[in-house]
Amino acid sequence: MEEVYVIGIGMTPFGKHPDKTAADLGAEAVGLALADAGVGRQDIEAAWVGHVFQGMAMGQRALYAAGLSGIPIDNVENACSSGSTAIWDAAMALRAGAYDLVLALGVEHLTSLFRGAFAPDASDVEAQIGITMPGIYAMRAQRYMLQYGVVPEQIAQITVKNKKNAAMNPLSHFKKAVTLEEVMQGRLIADPLRLHECAPVSDGAAAVVLASKAKRNQLGGSRAVKLAATALMSGRIESGLADMTVEDLTWRTAQAAYKQSGVGPGDIDFAEVHDCFSIAEALRVEGMGLFPHGEYVARVGKGEADIGGSFPVNASGGLLGKGHPLGATGVAQVVELVKQLRGDAGERQIQNAKVGVAHCRGGKAQGVEGTACTVNILVA
Amino acid sequence: MEEVYVIGIGMTPFGKHPDKTAADLGAEAVGLALADAGVGRQDIEAAWVGHVFQGMAMGQRALYAAGLSGIPIDNVENACSSGSTAIWDAAMALRAGAYDLVLALGVEHLTSLFRGAFAPDASDVEAQIGITMPGIYAMRAQRYMLQYGVVPEQIAQITVKNKKNAAMNPLSHFKKAVTLEEVMQGRLIADPLRLHECAPVSDGAAAVVLASKAKRNQLGGSRAVKLAATALMSGRIESGLADMTVEDLTWRTAQAAYKQSGVGPGDIDFAEVHDCFSIAEALRVEGMGLFPHGEYVARVGKGEADIGGSFPVNASGGLLGKGHPLGATGVAQVVELVKQLRGDAGERQIQNAKVGVAHCRGGKAQGVEGTACTVNILVA
Repeated sequence: MEEVYVIGIGMTPFGKHPDKTAADLGAEAVGLALADAGVGRQDIEAAWVGHVFQGMAMGQRALYAAGLSGIPIDNVENACSSGSTAIWDAAMALRAGAYDLVLALGVEHLTSLFRGAFAPDASDVEAQIGITMPGIYAMRAQRYMLQYGVVPEQIAQITVKNKKNAAMNPLSHFKKAVTLEEVMQGRLIADPLRLHECAPVSDGAAAVVLASKAKRNQLGGSRAVKLAATALMSGRIESGLADMTVEDLTWRTAQAAYKQSGVGPGDIDFAEVHDCFSIAEALRVEGMGLFPHGEYVARVGKGEADIGGSFPVNASGGLLGKGHPLGATGVAQVVELVKQLRGDAGERQIQNAKVGVAHCRGGKAQGVEGTACTVNILVA
Repeated sequence: MEEVYVIGIGMTPFGKHPDKTAADLGAEAVGLALADAGVGRQDIEAAWVGHVFQGMAMGQRALYAAGLSGIPIDNVENACSSGSTAIWDAAMALRAGAYDLVLALGVEHLTSLFRGAFAPDASDVEAQIGITMPGIYAMRAQRYMLQYGVVPEQIAQITVKNKKNAAMNPLSHFKKAVTLEEVMQGRLIADPLRLHECAPVSDGAAAVVLASKAKRNQLGGSRAVKLAATALMSGRIESGLADMTVEDLTWRTAQAAYKQSGVGPGDIDFAEVHDCFSIAEALRVEGMGLFPHGEYVARVGKGEADIGGSFPVNASGGLLGKGHPLGATGVAQVVELVKQLRGDAGERQIQNAKVGVAHCRGGKAQGVEGTACTVNILVA
């Protein structure tokens, strides 16, 4: 298959944008990505746009606002993996040889739709009995604590780390580090998870320009980063009752990405993962085989996942710190990987970053392990 | 690029399904398509699902209900072209060599969401001043009448033809032919368009199994039909004020499909086009260069677009007769093309059908000609 490169990245600040629409945010990210790639609006041959709650033709609205029109535009949705699914589709089109230069955009304006937590549908039986997202992850945290002998304070350290990183990211929703005491004094959302351990409701957009090898070479491309693998998987019906601390979906998606790229867990230097809740970060990195099962939480306490540690996780601040505008999240993770691999991450730069992985997953479904998961591997 | 074949088709009856969910309908269409292809659930490697209004993870809900899980599943939305965009993405993945056997599903349950016409959003300025879909197509009909000297009765003949065809399609929403008098006595929706000239609000689903050439050969594939081209385009900002009787978006999309397949308008035997309103059928076939501009309506009166005519259009009944469950429509058109090309269309069979084209477009956008358009060309 044709090789795929990320040759341009763009991202709006994540946070509350009461004065902007989703189309405004999308257009802003697209403009930044085109400028970063050094290409014009007329050079883009097709675009995929990931979002969850923005309604019909979101992609067209954002791209028309950015001055791009008359090309194939596709809107894709896969819960929290919507943005990374847009990258997956866009890469497929390059691999098919259908195009040489395409765009993937993720965008979401959530604060105009939700206040505080997501309001469950009154007809949602699972929500009525408390099986909301915080409820599910709280149960998983309880099981993790029981099974691996850790305490809530250790899990909370994941939030402390990520918010410290977010404070070094000028595009973060939260720009203030928090102490362990502050996390533990936070409101209990679903035992043992407290307020700071739950990703916020954010607005934002992120975009990447993807190119074939020929186009990358033609454009110069000294700052291009190779998209060595992009994998998408859905949940398995049979996994609904599996061990809650083991992510089969994450494991299967990572295996597909490892196979596609020839890169194994031991070759990877750092990760951006879907920390929608503090405990989720542990489930992700262990699910991908980056840490042994049951060890991650304890290792965070030793600083191993810090930016200066042996395997930095969520140097961007993650969803907990950088924010979580659903559709934008998967693309923003890839934006962070590119920044790190280029050496452009400023004070949160990871030293000797050569291979990075981005993990995104989302959704729940009755009796099934989840909606979708993506794993992208980028190589400098 | 890798060749792509349709090796299985499935479609639910279109109409009102108060006792079924969208997932039920989707699962039913998937089951029929798999059975038709002679493959099992476990053989499908990835799936794309087109819908507009069915909410998060519709594809997963339908496919899990059909017993398919653990594979890449992607939800795509492009207004009325959502289903055909799913085919476009699925074909891209086969062309990339990523998979050999994939599924595209279109599904929509509209009667649970809308009663009668689509209710415009109160904040929609265009709807407030009357620029709704019926309003737009009525203006286009008025312009067409003025420019090409036809009268409302001639345009209404398109509905008479399509409902006659629908009456021969056991999966149609409407199974009763109407006379010209009945159409002209119908309630005036937006002058000159009357009730029977507007596509109904329908529920339904349609699915196709797509295969690479190698997989088609491996499976036998005597009933396989080649997807010679699949093209997607969005509107152009600059076209907003163009001649309302000329469809630049349809023209550009058709040109892309002709180029991709090497098939020109003169090679095509019949068409399924997006007749959301009677006049729309004329705009589509003329936009694709299948009839000269301004001539189609008069030629319908001569029977040229009838099933027994020189160039049959909407033998399935079209959106006007078969129904219009938005996300399902683009896939259902391809299902009809396959039936005709296999010689399986029963009493509405077109003689000597070798090359067929399906056209689908949807959406409007302020100052822009539309959201998305797809053109698929199938060859027996």
